[in-house]
Amino acid sequence: MKRIAFTLMLLFYCISAFAAKVDTVQIPSAAMNKTYKAAIAFPNAYAKSKASFPVLYLLHGGYGHFDDWLSKTPDKSLVKNLADQYNIIIVMPEGEIFSYYVDSPVDPGSKFETYIIREVIPFIDSKYRTVNDKKGRLITGLSMGGYGSLYLSTRHPDLFAAAGSMSGALDPNMTTWKLPPDRFEMLTKMLDKIWGPMTPDTYLQYSVVNMADQIRRNGLPLVINIGVDDFLLEPNRELHRRLVYNHTPHDYSEQPGGHTWEFWQNALPGHLLFFSKVLKANGTYVL
Amino acid sequence: MKRIAFTLMLLFYCISAFAAKVDTVQIPSAAMNKTYKAAIAFPNAYAKSKASFPVLYLLHGGYGHFDDWLSKTPDKSLVKNLADQYNIIIVMPEGEIFSYYVDSPVDPGSKFETYIIREVIPFIDSKYRTVNDKKGRLITGLSMGGYGSLYLSTRHPDLFAAAGSMSGALDPNMTTWKLPPDRFEMLTKMLDKIWGPMTPDTYLQYSVVNMADQIRRNGLPLVINIGVDDFLLEPNRELHRRLVYNHTPHDYSEQPGGHTWEFWQNALPGHLLFFSKVLKANGTYVL
Amino acid sequence: MKRIAFTLMLLFYCISAFAAKVDTVQIPSAAMNKTYKAAIAFPNAYAKSKASFPVLYLLHGGYGHFDDWLSKTPDKSLVKNLADQYNIIIVMPEGEIFSYYVDSPVDPGSKFETYIIREVIPFIDSKYRTVNDKKGRLITGLSMGGYGSLYLSTRHPDLFAAAGSMSGALDPNMTTWKLPPDRFEMLTKMLDKIWGPMTPDTYLQYSVVNMADQIRRNGLPLVINIGVDDFLLEPNRELHRRLVYNHTPHDYSEQPGGHTWEFWQNALPGHLLFFSKVLKANGTYVL
Amino acid sequence: MKRIAFTLMLLFYCISAFAAKVDTVQIPSAAMNKTYKAAIAFPNAYAKSKASFPVLYLLHGGYGHFDDWLSKTPDKSLVKNLADQYNIIIVMPEGEIFSYYVDSPVDPGSKFETYIIREVIPFIDSKYRTVNDKKGRLITGLSMGGYGSLYLSTRHPDLFAAAGSMSGALDPNMTTWKLPPDRFEMLTKMLDKIWGPMTPDTYLQYSVVNMADQIRRNGLPLVINIGVDDFLLEPNRELHRRLVYNHTPHDYSEQPGGHTWEFWQNALPGHLLFFSKVLKANGTYVL
Repeated sequence: MKRIAFTLMLLFYCISAFAAKVDTVQIPSAAMNKTYKAAIAFPNAYAKSKASFPVLYLLHGGYGHFDDWLSKTPDKSLVKNLADQYNIIIVMPEGEIFSYYVDSPVDPGSKFETYIIREVIPFIDSKYRTVNDKKGRLITGLSMGGYGSLYLSTRHPDLFAAAGSMSGALDPNMTTWKLPPDRFEMLTKMLDKIWGPMTPDTYLQYSVVNMADQIRRNGLPLVINIGVDDFLLEPNRELHRRLVYNHTPHDYSEQPGGHTWEFWQNALPGHLLFFSKVLKANGTYVL
Repeated sequence: MKRIAFTLMLLFYCISAFAAKVDTVQIPSAAMNKTYKAAIAFPNAYAKSKASFPVLYLLHGGYGHFDDWLSKTPDKSLVKNLADQYNIIIVMPEGEIFSYYVDSPVDPGSKFETYIIREVIPFIDSKYRTVNDKKGRLITGLSMGGYGSLYLSTRHPDLFAAAGSMSGALDPNMTTWKLPPDRFEMLTKMLDKIWGPMTPDTYLQYSVVNMADQIRRNGLPLVINIGVDDFLLEPNRELHRRLVYNHTPHDYSEQPGGHTWEFWQNALPGHLLFFSKVLKANGTYVL
Repeated sequence: MKRIAFTLMLLFYCISAFAAKVDTVQIPSAAMNKTYKAAIAFPNAYAKSKASFPVLYLLHGGYGHFDDWLSKTPDKSLVKNLADQYNIIIVMPEGEIFSYYVDSPVDPGSKFETYIIREVIPFIDSKYRTVNDKKGRLITGLSMGGYGSLYLSTRHPDLFAAAGSMSGALDPNMTTWKLPPDRFEMLTKMLDKIWGPMTPDTYLQYSVVNMADQIRRNGLPLVINIGVDDFLLEPNRELHRRLVYNHTPHDYSEQPGGHTWEFWQNALPGHLLFFSKVLKANGTYVL
Repeated sequence: MKRIAFTLMLLFYCISAFAAKVDTVQIPSAAMNKTYKAAIAFPNAYAKSKASFPVLYLLHGGYGHFDDWLSKTPDKSLVKNLADQYNIIIVMPEGEIFSYYVDSPVDPGSKFETYIIREVIPFIDSKYRTVNDKKGRLITGLSMGGYGSLYLSTRHPDLFAAAGSMSGALDPNMTTWKLPPDRFEMLTKMLDKIWGPMTPDTYLQYSVVNMADQIRRNGLPLVINIGVDDFLLEPNRELHRRLVYNHTPHDYSEQPGGHTWEFWQNALPGHLLFFSKVLKANGTYVL
């Protein structure tokens, strides 16, 4: 009997897998007078249920767009499978190629902190059956998106249960990165458009590394990964050291690899596992 | 239709969970002229299948015994559930209270390297439907068991696909630990029985920290966790630094917490996830 | 001929050594309505010259008083000999037993920042033939005095050419120190009188570790020593890491030993050598 | 009276300074069937005395020769002045451009360990009034010479009282250095002539970083400097960490700057100060 049920189960699971929903939606920005797309991966269970589901905001990196996590991972169904496995709605918003997910101090047309916090999140909460509460809201991302995740969750701790970073560009001051001089020049030119002219002090207010004490006060569970060959190793190590120094609990991992989609594909499941423990502990996990 | 199958599936899963097999067996040691017990958690799928299953050797810590992982974790079904989830047979052998899983240089009655490598592993492979090959054999443990896992896998890389350590006592030289003087005295007395009288040079040959170059040569995937409040933090950091220095790929995490069952219960699922990726890559993972 | 001159030189040197001047003076504090003593070691050359001499402010540690550097070093003539060797006036002011050289936020009777900066320095400059300028003013100290040196020079960079710290208590938040619990309790009680009730955030504004960016902006040459067995190792390492991270030039040494007068006697000559190079470079060194 | 003697003293000091002796000698090598030059700076006091003087062996770096320390420092009289100030004979032997001061495993014509230890030292001791004993023999050097100093003193601890390293190339495995790829290629080609074809394991036996436990056993006082911008930072940090880990007393400094003569000119006086304390403690210092 078990065997028959098991086989049926396997059959329906396979069918369900092929029917996993990933939608593309338009989320307007009044602040930027523009509309941007977002992708949303719904767990299978979402359509079959009346429960409210937790939401993970999954941010792309520099040079990227909203659909990176669906198109650039070696396993194209990574995000969909994780949404199913953990019963979490995964929202992938647009962050433009170099917004850093901040409200730019120099470009009024780049207000991605406002967009994510005041426009995307309310849009998602109003349209879908989400846990519309800090308890059921998570955020993580890669590179510029890892920065964005920690920047936004540190400035808005009332909105998130936990946050993560994969290869996060945690310090926009690129003198802390390991870049060859020509690449440093080129990136500086591009990023001047967002940050304005660069001084170490201009950067301080935007550096997540410099927010270690605010991170301590907030007390959000954090999961941080960095590859030992990544040019962003130092900012990640520096943040970790400051969080150890000021006794802030956080998960920190150094792993093989560098700034690659292979690394991020390998790291994301660990973030979902980490987040699922947080959700189980605060009662919003959907079984 | 989906809903009915889903419900049936849930029902049988629950029944299966209550029916997860954990056996206790006797594994004799010719080398020590003794017989010790071991616990074995079989995945549900084992009884329903003809496939060969990978095996994880899960080592207990100091002051402990074979059944620690079944009796001391807050969630008593942790190991059984992981065996089910990942289709891995989990063997928990006896390591006695302070054997360090080595062949003691001074106590001929304590030969736990020989026991695990030449007696337990062949016993398990002969009695059960295991992947009787390096590709399907994994090892990890906590504290003294974390040391044992890395010590044994480093000395017998032909036997294992990957290894892990949770709060590993990676350097038996306890001057590298953060112990209060009275505890240091007391442990020294106990461990003299295994190591003999202590000098920094006696310890070097047994220190996993000192094996960083052999670890590099072996190339086994490794997953290492340590709590930032653990008295074993320094040996773990030192091994990590040497493995970064000599370019040995390995996963290393510093997490909140100390030398507690709560920490190990939190770390073990991450080890199983890590091992499952290794098994999937080498073709021995049972779907 | 050389030999005769050499012998004469040796003779007079010896006579001069025995005649090295160390004065004790009274330096009143209007801010605290009290008068405190200070010791001053004058180079031999001071009395024989009309030149203006640079001044080193040498601060004592916790539980100490103005004459510590003359009475507690194994070699009681250490400070006098260094004053002679480098032609620097060495002023040893009173810092009371636990003032931390700050203006206490809770005890109006403890205003040692005001005392040192606005009362002691002007007193010395008015009474003696000093280089009354940032260029000829140096500061260093041990333990609480190392903290004081860096705290005062960071807040008053216009007053000093360079600063040093030996075993500095660089973070008044004692959870960053390696203290046994009973000592932690006892020191906390004592220091509450100066700092007020303790929170991590109260301490931030007084932590030299937290001033790494101001230190960078100031650009003062710094020389920092810490013993690897010192309970203050972590705050010193943390400051050093932050100064490396933000590219602030500074001399940092880890040496054998702990929080002992032997350590400080060994470190002070290196500080004088360091300071002499600064003075030679800015033209205030007296040959 | 003091003033007259002081003036006479000053006069003779100046005369003496201009008369400081730096000799160039030929020191043959039977092992290499060659004769190499060496420079020797004698303290003023040497000629006026019958005492035996301690000797410092000061090694040059890669691409260099015996007279580097006399010709490449900004202050050309640095070494002579230090010899005078500390009454130490400073010997600057030839190490050829890339010998690493080892007996090459592949080039029988490059035996600089034998040369320094068995040929130069006995030559100096036989020809000059030296302290012909471990107690009065010191060694230090820059870059390849810093490596040589630690390599030779670690392998011959019976010959030296203390050793130093400035920007030492402490690990000949250049994958541990921060080199641009083209420079790495070029140096690899050159150094293959000394080391033979490169593997991580070939290097281990020659890596000073890998000798941390022998260094511990030897117990020699060590003084190590590295600039934070030096491409050799990592090997120096790794050695320091291992020496802290295994409780080996040593002086370690991270300072501003990189691989420059300015850095070495700044570091050498500190080494002489360090060595003078060792000599004063063991009774061989000449007053």
